[in-house]
Amino acid sequence: MVDKYTEKTISQKTIYDGAVIRVNVETVELPNGKQAMRELVHHRGAVGILAITPANKIVLVSQYRKALDKTILEIPAGKLEEGEKPLESAYRELQEETGYTTSTMQQITKFYTSPGFADELIYLFKAGDLKKGKANLDEDEFVDTVELSLFEVAELTRKGAINDAKTLIAIYYWQTEVLKGRL
Amino acid sequence: MVDKYTEKTISQKTIYDGAVIRVNVETVELPNGKQAMRELVHHRGAVGILAITPANKIVLVSQYRKALDKTILEIPAGKLEEGEKPLESAYRELQEETGYTTSTMQQITKFYTSPGFADELIYLFKAGDLKKGKANLDEDEFVDTVELSLFEVAELTRKGAINDAKTLIAIYYWQTEVLKGRL
Repeated sequence: MVDKYTEKTISQKTIYDGAVIRVNVETVELPNGKQAMRELVHHRGAVGILAITPANKIVLVSQYRKALDKTILEIPAGKLEEGEKPLESAYRELQEETGYTTSTMQQITKFYTSPGFADELIYLFKAGDLKKGKANLDEDEFVDTVELSLFEVAELTRKGAINDAKTLIAIYYWQTEVLKGRL
Repeated sequence: MVDKYTEKTISQKTIYDGAVIRVNVETVELPNGKQAMRELVHHRGAVGILAITPANKIVLVSQYRKALDKTILEIPAGKLEEGEKPLESAYRELQEETGYTTSTMQQITKFYTSPGFADELIYLFKAGDLKKGKANLDEDEFVDTVELSLFEVAELTRKGAINDAKTLIAIYYWQTEVLKGRL
């Protein structure tokens, strides 16, 4: 896209620099010359994996999220480690969270989760040829895996029971690929 | 979902309380009794609209995003105003950003954009029977609208040129509905 309307940073202040996020408040100059404030969250990025088992089921993890104070169903996912490439991260997270390993990990797309205030970019991968091993969770990570057919997960989606953006993208991608194959 | 593993807040500190986000740092007790830190962003939520014109095109907006320092294509969207219901917000944002009004606005689903650190919830609507009027942008809002066919937008998606989570969900939803109708 052409950057027709940009915002020039006039001043910038780092409010918080933590383990997961850095928060900046910036004063910017708008295209009309006026000034505005921007509250911006920097995140180092993450991966998510659409993992399909030999029985043609999607592997999901059920995980408590403190930000929501509830447990939701998501595709296996995790933050990039420092210096880690997205592809390496995808292999690692899939194995750690679900125990599955794979020889076929392909990037589907990448997307910003909340471009209005955050720069978090998620790389979405598809993993096939899954081999079951033992999950290797961080000692402070508590997740359970669930395997669902396309019909089951499409039903959950239709009922509004899947409420995570990356997971909806993965499910719709899978459904679209299957539907196209049937045309 | 059952909350099998919860995290109890031991202490909480508000680092920043701005116009768009509030940032809290919490010390929590994990299911194994150990403690951990959580960096959490509170956001009041937003709406996004899958708007389909009488010519069967999706209405997108191209918008510069300071968090990314670039311009991306997104569905019309915006933050909930204080006390505003998601449905009202969807009518308002569609009209303000694109000039389109509609009598049929239906919620498709809702999803968290970044549950690992933020509670932002986006309500996704579908709008049909669009009537063209004049856009009514905030004086500090600079967006251009683009209208694309399903074929065009599916091609952009396939090429990785759509990089916004809510927009991918809307496009895949639309594509899935159309594909199902053809089976």
